[in-house]
Amino acid sequence: MNLGFRTLDGSPDYMRLALRLAARGAGWVSPNPLVGAVVVRQGVVVGRGWHRRYGGPHAEVEALRAAGERARQADLYVTLEPCHHHGKTPPCTEAILNAGISRLFIATLDPNPHVTGGGAAYLRQMGLKVETGLLSAEAQRLNEAWFTWLHTGRPLVIAKAACSLDGRLATVTGESQWLTGPQARTFAHRLRHQVDAVLVGINTVLADNPQLTTRLPKKGNSSLTPLTSHRIPPTKTSSPAKDPIRIVLDSRLRLPLEARLLHLTSSAPTWVATTPNAPPEKIHALEKLGAEVLVLPADQGRVALPPLLSFLGQRHIQSLLVEGGADVLGSFFDQKLVHKFYFFYAPKFLGGRQAPGVLAGRGTARLQDCLTARHLSIRRLGPDILITGYL
Amino acid sequence: MNLGFRTLDGSPDYMRLALRLAARGAGWVSPNPLVGAVVVRQGVVVGRGWHRRYGGPHAEVEALRAAGERARQADLYVTLEPCHHHGKTPPCTEAILNAGISRLFIATLDPNPHVTGGGAAYLRQMGLKVETGLLSAEAQRLNEAWFTWLHTGRPLVIAKAACSLDGRLATVTGESQWLTGPQARTFAHRLRHQVDAVLVGINTVLADNPQLTTRLPKKGNSSLTPLTSHRIPPTKTSSPAKDPIRIVLDSRLRLPLEARLLHLTSSAPTWVATTPNAPPEKIHALEKLGAEVLVLPADQGRVALPPLLSFLGQRHIQSLLVEGGADVLGSFFDQKLVHKFYFFYAPKFLGGRQAPGVLAGRGTARLQDCLTARHLSIRRLGPDILITGYL
Repeated sequence: MNLGFRTLDGSPDYMRLALRLAARGAGWVSPNPLVGAVVVRQGVVVGRGWHRRYGGPHAEVEALRAAGERARQADLYVTLEPCHHHGKTPPCTEAILNAGISRLFIATLDPNPHVTGGGAAYLRQMGLKVETGLLSAEAQRLNEAWFTWLHTGRPLVIAKAACSLDGRLATVTGESQWLTGPQARTFAHRLRHQVDAVLVGINTVLADNPQLTTRLPKKGNSSLTPLTSHRIPPTKTSSPAKDPIRIVLDSRLRLPLEARLLHLTSSAPTWVATTPNAPPEKIHALEKLGAEVLVLPADQGRVALPPLLSFLGQRHIQSLLVEGGADVLGSFFDQKLVHKFYFFYAPKFLGGRQAPGVLAGRGTARLQDCLTARHLSIRRLGPDILITGYL
Repeated sequence: MNLGFRTLDGSPDYMRLALRLAARGAGWVSPNPLVGAVVVRQGVVVGRGWHRRYGGPHAEVEALRAAGERARQADLYVTLEPCHHHGKTPPCTEAILNAGISRLFIATLDPNPHVTGGGAAYLRQMGLKVETGLLSAEAQRLNEAWFTWLHTGRPLVIAKAACSLDGRLATVTGESQWLTGPQARTFAHRLRHQVDAVLVGINTVLADNPQLTTRLPKKGNSSLTPLTSHRIPPTKTSSPAKDPIRIVLDSRLRLPLEARLLHLTSSAPTWVATTPNAPPEKIHALEKLGAEVLVLPADQGRVALPPLLSFLGQRHIQSLLVEGGADVLGSFFDQKLVHKFYFFYAPKFLGGRQAPGVLAGRGTARLQDCLTARHLSIRRLGPDILITGYL
């Protein structure tokens, strides 16, 4: 990275560094946003920080602490507007003032109604030179889940699927393990670490009996790209991965009491989303096993998805990874509820008129009405191809 | 391109130039191979040539003619072993000797039993320094259709399909035009120019009434990559595109006499492949319209594909583009007859359990038995993604 100093404007390179630092917190800070900060004095980075964990110090405070006296008259780059209110920690605006920062570069303002513009305006008033908007698109992307949740009250919905080059989820006999290679599967576990919750349909549980936990190999985690488009540099403090909340869509509560995801050692709970038709005794039995049963409105016998998403938003779920199967993915696509997708393509052809396609559901009748993806990105993961995009 | 001179060995840069020149003949030289040649004297390219058209001068002769007297003591780079026999033209070995070439670099030997090693051995015997194998893999790739045909007696089978990201050929109502954008469609027409024949099933004819001709926009042809992986530099002599032979798989001869592909102004004929069950009067009617009807063995009521491919090989068809539909593509994949594929993915999701998948057929029962693609390459064509590979 070129860290060449520019005297007049904020340097995108320093902000890029701050964004990369911020991304290190992915999976650990929700429902807080990811934030990174860099202190630069006369062309030299003298302090770095990022929000490491929900409840922990803010990025600015970490960076200023690292810089110490060298922060005086220095520039501070921060990916999100500094807070100006007492939350779990004292306001960052005071720390910035006390440290003697002279210029402040902010990527995005905080859209939180209690915060917006407050921190930047206050510091400007106190004599700092404040610039906003440097790499704002990248910073928005970094916290896309948080922004989506703040703006809509619902999580960012991320569809994940693996299929053959001809779009089949499994062979005609239903065999699907493993279509993709270890790199793609590790990437998928990395996604689980980064999201607040993961969702599957009951048919997937009945067919595969998945754990839905995050299982990452001991080495190599750091080389994977996080949910955001910023690459995480190797983290010095290697942390165990985080499990997402497991959600099963199960309108009639067919979930077997011996399902693996009901008998895990996991920091995250299992939630079962069902309809008012669910048998009360089964609800009780699941609750006795530690699961939480969410009784939601039904839509043609199935759990209605929009109320589910609103409920998850109320529970501070900012990102939801929908892992399938084909019917559940189809429902989310049919109802245009997907924001982002990760489709893994194994370099294989399964064929077969009867082989299950990766998306079931009703589908689109007219070509002009179909969902069109934007901002596609393509990468290789070992033998497989990953296509990511937005809807 | 770096054309830096190397005194000891043949320079891959010059051979690469020769390969690029050779690729200019794509679509025009079959059943001859593509050949390019470059004459280099003291680090300067003094002659270039390529085989432009079946029956026209060989690449070496063109390059030597361009170099004239400057070919004396010069190096000659040629992508295929020079011929040493009288064919449609005098042997290139004589032209090389007469021109006074001192060193000869050959990418691949001619596998033709009448030729192999003959030209190279003869010239070595006559005192030239001869090296073979420079960029041989690239040269093999360039003439992959020709090599396949020489080795197997059958054409290189190229499957082409366009689908959504979820592997659907059309919506649940059957709408498929146009899934992909103009760049992908132009690329597909470029493929037609480069192959000897194109094949579709009768259902595709009944549904779409295609022409199966090569229709390229006036401008922009030259920016497209040819069938081979070598980019064609803009051709100075802009030639019209070539139509491939059109082949319809039609076991019961349901082809309507008013089908567009029976009433074209085209340099290439239409062939209809059928089974012994075809009604003789329909054969006669099709022949009256100028089509050739190929009566081939049946396999479960359909045209048996291996005999068809052998027949096409006997007719000097070196490359066959299978364009669909899903049943025909499925049959070729089921029978493991596909060598290479071009799959275009539109950035769309069609969904729908009932929407047709891009490959029908029987499919693979067990994952371990499925077709696995090698040498994948991925590129973007406007909004679409093209994945190419080999089976």
